[in-house]
Amino acid sequence: MQRLAIDMDEVMADTLAHYLNRYNSDFGQSLTKAELGGKRPFDTLPLAHREQVMTYFQDPEFFADIPLMEGSQEAISKLSERYEIFITTAAMDVPCSFTPKFQWLARHFPEIQPSHIVFCGDKSIIAADFLVDDNVRHLENFRGEGIVFTAPHNVHETRFRRADSWPDVERLLL
Amino acid sequence: MQRLAIDMDEVMADTLAHYLNRYNSDFGQSLTKAELGGKRPFDTLPLAHREQVMTYFQDPEFFADIPLMEGSQEAISKLSERYEIFITTAAMDVPCSFTPKFQWLARHFPEIQPSHIVFCGDKSIIAADFLVDDNVRHLENFRGEGIVFTAPHNVHETRFRRADSWPDVERLLL
Repeated sequence: MQRLAIDMDEVMADTLAHYLNRYNSDFGQSLTKAELGGKRPFDTLPLAHREQVMTYFQDPEFFADIPLMEGSQEAISKLSERYEIFITTAAMDVPCSFTPKFQWLARHFPEIQPSHIVFCGDKSIIAADFLVDDNVRHLENFRGEGIVFTAPHNVHETRFRRADSWPDVERLLL
Repeated sequence: MQRLAIDMDEVMADTLAHYLNRYNSDFGQSLTKAELGGKRPFDTLPLAHREQVMTYFQDPEFFADIPLMEGSQEAISKLSERYEIFITTAAMDVPCSFTPKFQWLARHFPEIQPSHIVFCGDKSIIAADFLVDDNVRHLENFRGEGIVFTAPHNVHETRFRRADSWPDVERLLL
């Protein structure tokens, strides 16, 4: 059975929507994903807002409440019939996210066993055939075939097969 | 550069010594590592003691205070000149250990970058050339060469090259 590694933030979890909701609520703004093309949201914010926004990622609650990426549960359920699934998330950048990420997976993806969850940093350590990830740095380091999951910050990337959505991942891999 | 993956508990950290110290203190016993040959400590305890002992592993403090395995700092420092080192620990079995394990590594091995720390379950996901581990199940699953680090529960294992101590690991790999 081939092995499929899947990233969490911006792939299984709509972290960016959650981040923009919180930012818009805190600052009375209406920033949308569409306005971010090619940029990370932080880089588009007024300098005066950045200090407060940085604290979002020190708050375990932030990670607990992230909504599902549309279609992720259904697609991962189907993919698990054909692939051995591992969840591989770069949690080491944000140690306060360990427990809420683990609990988030248990809540939304109870069929994924803890033995198949990996918190890592450099994804070159992952032994799998495919990696679905929004982060180009991780796809570059990965030793199998990387599939880029579309997010505003990666729209100009052309070196990997691309999935714009979970139905797209199904089309590529099933 | 070849890549060396290293387990934490019973390899970098003398978890068993810590566990026996706590058990002996709580129950007025004097159980030693030598008495455990071939067995996991839990299986040697009187049934009446087991319920309390199981709580040790739900206590984050337990993981924070584990002493270093003798020679681990010196050896890992030398090995890092020849190998790219990743720390690969099966933390997913014990979610309350995430943060104390991360902090323990930062305190005792500050030169190891967070990007090179991996919390996992099934170590078949680890892409590395060598894995030093006391747990035979992980060595069996690993895709590179496993080296068994001697602990009471693995003394009868013969399928892997064996290191009885950190100087032994240096002799095998340097």
